[in-house]
Formats: sequence, structure tokens, C-alpha cells
Amino acid sequence: MGDETPANLEEAIMTTDRELAIFEAAIKLGALYHQWVGTPVSRASAELLEKAIEKSVILQPYVEEISVGLDRSLMTPNMHGYSEVAGLMFHVEIVTRVRFSYCRARLSPKDDYPYMEIVECNEAGKNTPD
Amino acid sequence: MGDETPANLEEAIMTTDRELAIFEAAIKLGALYHQWVGTPVSRASAELLEKAIEKSVILQPYVEEISVGLDRSLMTPNMHGYSEVAGLMFHVEIVTRVRFSYCRARLSPKDDYPYMEIVECNEAGKNTPD
Amino acid sequence: MGDETPANLEEAIMTTDRELAIFEAAIKLGALYHQWVGTPVSRASAELLEKAIEKSVILQPYVEEISVGLDRSLMTPNMHGYSEVAGLMFHVEIVTRVRFSYCRARLSPKDDYPYMEIVECNEAGKNTPD
Amino acid sequence: MGDETPANLEEAIMTTDRELAIFEAAIKLGALYHQWVGTPVSRASAELLEKAIEKSVILQPYVEEISVGLDRSLMTPNMHGYSEVAGLMFHVEIVTRVRFSYCRARLSPKDDYPYMEIVECNEAGKNTPD
Repeated sequence: MGDETPANLEEAIMTTDRELAIFEAAIKLGALYHQWVGTPVSRASAELLEKAIEKSVILQPYVEEISVGLDRSLMTPNMHGYSEVAGLMFHVEIVTRVRFSYCRARLSPKDDYPYMEIVECNEAGKNTPD
Repeated sequence: MGDETPANLEEAIMTTDRELAIFEAAIKLGALYHQWVGTPVSRASAELLEKAIEKSVILQPYVEEISVGLDRSLMTPNMHGYSEVAGLMFHVEIVTRVRFSYCRARLSPKDDYPYMEIVECNEAGKNTPD
Repeated sequence: MGDETPANLEEAIMTTDRELAIFEAAIKLGALYHQWVGTPVSRASAELLEKAIEKSVILQPYVEEISVGLDRSLMTPNMHGYSEVAGLMFHVEIVTRVRFSYCRARLSPKDDYPYMEIVECNEAGKNTPD
Repeated sequence: MGDETPANLEEAIMTTDRELAIFEAAIKLGALYHQWVGTPVSRASAELLEKAIEKSVILQPYVEEISVGLDRSLMTPNMHGYSEVAGLMFHVEIVTRVRFSYCRARLSPKDDYPYMEIVECNEAGKNTPD
């Protein structure tokens, strides 16, 4: 998005930085969900997996912060003593930034559904505490 | 999102329907990318796979339209005569709707990167042709 | 595996065709499980998804037959009316062949675990009906 | 496989422990390939990801040893400075055991294909060095 072609310029008119930050946050939540669901995990290995997911997501463009928690209470061991990452295990918060606009979004269970939602959006120098 | 609790109401104040439509479109693009990358595919099986991806995405909330094309020209057969779905093969357009707001977003290659972008946003009864 | 280098020859001594057929069947079962788990699905879309999985697996080397069934009874709709493919939904049978040796293997639920097992192995011209 | 039903007994006659060890090794190789392909990765994050894959695979039944290497030389940064795990990056060795039979298998590139093969099989107390 660095070099502004006319097409990009038009797009920039159509969407605000705040909207782009929202867009980028949601991409990452959707992506991590489907990348990691099904991974074998146990209470003992969960912390390493959380770190690996965080390190993977933070590589992606516009990501400022990411925290991943996997709900150990849902890791009921199967007959072989492990579980698989399920959608309802995810407690994720992500902050994306596009220029001066920030979006904080979340993936966590709500009514037995792995729910993704926008938590808040801020413009640097405006609503954010200094 | 049907029954409005106070928490939801506050959220509704913070984000517009247009922003929610953007958020939902991006979730689906991020999700489908990581769900389907790596799937064995050939030029002969590509059409069925496109249909299966479309049928899978359309199930998800807020999705109005989805079209998936997989670039056959990138399906160079390996030594066993098939390929795997790669990020650059995707040509996807999705339309999401939250109440009267629509977002059209796209996943397609740009500078050798599988690029996701907002194409346009519309409010029904306002910018859309009648 | 067509052109036999000395290294391959040694390997051929170490493992029988029957063992190679077993090896190849298991690769495909492990692969399809993790490729497709998490895919959004409904009773209405299940048949198309089954076909797409079959068409994808049959592309891979040594696969002679593949049948995929997804257990509709486990597709309990979530709050948005769809499900995601879960390990216990799979009823898969695959037949692989390495030269004259066949392996039939299966993925299906057993004691609430998505169980993969060898069903039978045959040598063409020996145990198989003509 | 603990409680032997008549069906299991028959199966035990049909397949040797060595064959079962081969079967289990291949399941894990196929599974890990499709679970982790597509994960965002960089040279800096690769080691953590390797450890996470190892910890995930070792949880699964019959796995005695697992080592995962991801080829940094293939991690060409995209326009945003990262890569995604590709099939050809994998250098994996796994050892499975069923009772006294061991199978060592490998996933590594061969002729530009992510090749899975049996390296050796041993019976404890027979071919293995003491």
C-alpha cells in the first residue's frame, strides 16, 4: 500500500484508515482460527502453542499486538491423553494499526460460538490516552 | 446479534453497520485462505473445489454473495500430476451485509502477494442503484 | 519411485509393497483429516463437500479408491445455522496400491475417537477375487 | 486397542506390529503436513514453530521421537517481510513404536516434491543395536 497508484487513491477515498484497521484485524482472526483449529494440544503443551500462534500472527502486516490464550478447561484428554484445538478454546485479542488508526478486536466464546468482534477503535492523538 | 443486551448496544454505538460488514467480510477471506491452502487440486478437479468453497463460505453469517475462482494457470502438475491450492491461485469476491450496509471485498494476487482488499461499501437505499 | 536408484533398491529390500501400500494409505488419512477439519458445513452442503474431498484425495499417488461420508447426525447447527467438520464426522475408506499390493484402510469413530485402522491388505493374483 | 474384541483379534492376525508402526508413522506425517502448511513464519520465528510442531506431534499415540526442521533458505520474505510454511520446507523424522516394533519415517524434499518415506523398521531385541 506504499506507492499510491490512482486506483489506490480512489480506494483510499472510499475507505478510512479506521475501516482498513478493522479489515486487517478481522483477516487475522479468521486466518488464525482456521490455521490452528485441529492442532493436537494438551495442558502441558498449550503455552508453547500460544506463543507459536502469537509469533506467527505478529509477522503479518498491520499487527501491533496479539495475545492468544487457549482455554485449558476445555482440553479434556481423549483416550490417548490429548485434545485438539477447538474454536471455543480461543481467547484472542489483536490490535491492528493503519497509519494513525487502531482497531482492537477479539475472538472468544459467546453463547457457545467462537465469536469475533470489534472491541474498540481509536485514532492516535485523538481518543487514545497520552 | 439479534437480542440487544446493553453490552451490544454500546458496541453498536461504537461501530457502524458499514464497519461491521467490513469486519465480517475480512473474517471470511482470512478464514477461507487458511482453510483451503494446501488442498490437492488439478485443473480437472478445480471447478468442484471452487463450488465446495463457495458452499462452505455462504453458510457463514452475513455472507450475501461469494464467488471463488482458482487460477488454473498456476496449477503446474508435480511429479504425481497434481498441484496444491496456493495463496496466489485465489480469485475471490465476497459481499457481506449487516442490516442495510454492504461490503464487497476481494482476495486476488497483487505483486505476487495474495492481497485482500475492500472493493466498495454501500448502504441500501443510498448509494446502490435501484 | 519409478526409476530405481541404488538407494531406492536398498529401501525396496527393507520394505515390502504391502508395507508401502499401508504407508501411503495412512498418509492420505492423516492428511485429509487435518486439511478438512474445521470447514463450515451443513446437511445441505455435506454431499458436495464429500465429493470435493474424494476428488482431492484421488489425485494423490497410489490411491485407487476413496469414499468419504460425513455424519449428518453430528451436524448440529450452531446459532448461525451451520456446523464445522469435526473429526468424529468422518467415515472414510481408502484403497491404495503399490505394484500388486493393495491396502484398504478406514477412518471412522470408535469410542469417541476418530480412529484410523487398516481394514485388509491383499496381493493381486493371490487373495483377491479374479 | 487395549480391550481385544474378536474383530480386533482378527485384525491383529492380519497386520503385524511392524505394519501398524508404519501405519501410525504415516498418519502423523500426513497430518502434520496439512495442519501446518500455510502458517506465517520467518527465519526468526522458525525455531519456535519447529518446537510447537514437535510438541504437538509427540502427544499423539505411538510416537516415540519427532524432530522437525524448517528450511530457512526457502523462507524468502514476501513484500511484508515474512513467508508461509511450504511443503518443501519440511525436514521431519519420526519414530513410532507398536509393542516391540519401531518405524522410522521421514518427510523431506526429493525432486521438488515433499516426499514421505519409510527409513527403517526394527524389532526391539532383534535388529536394533544393544
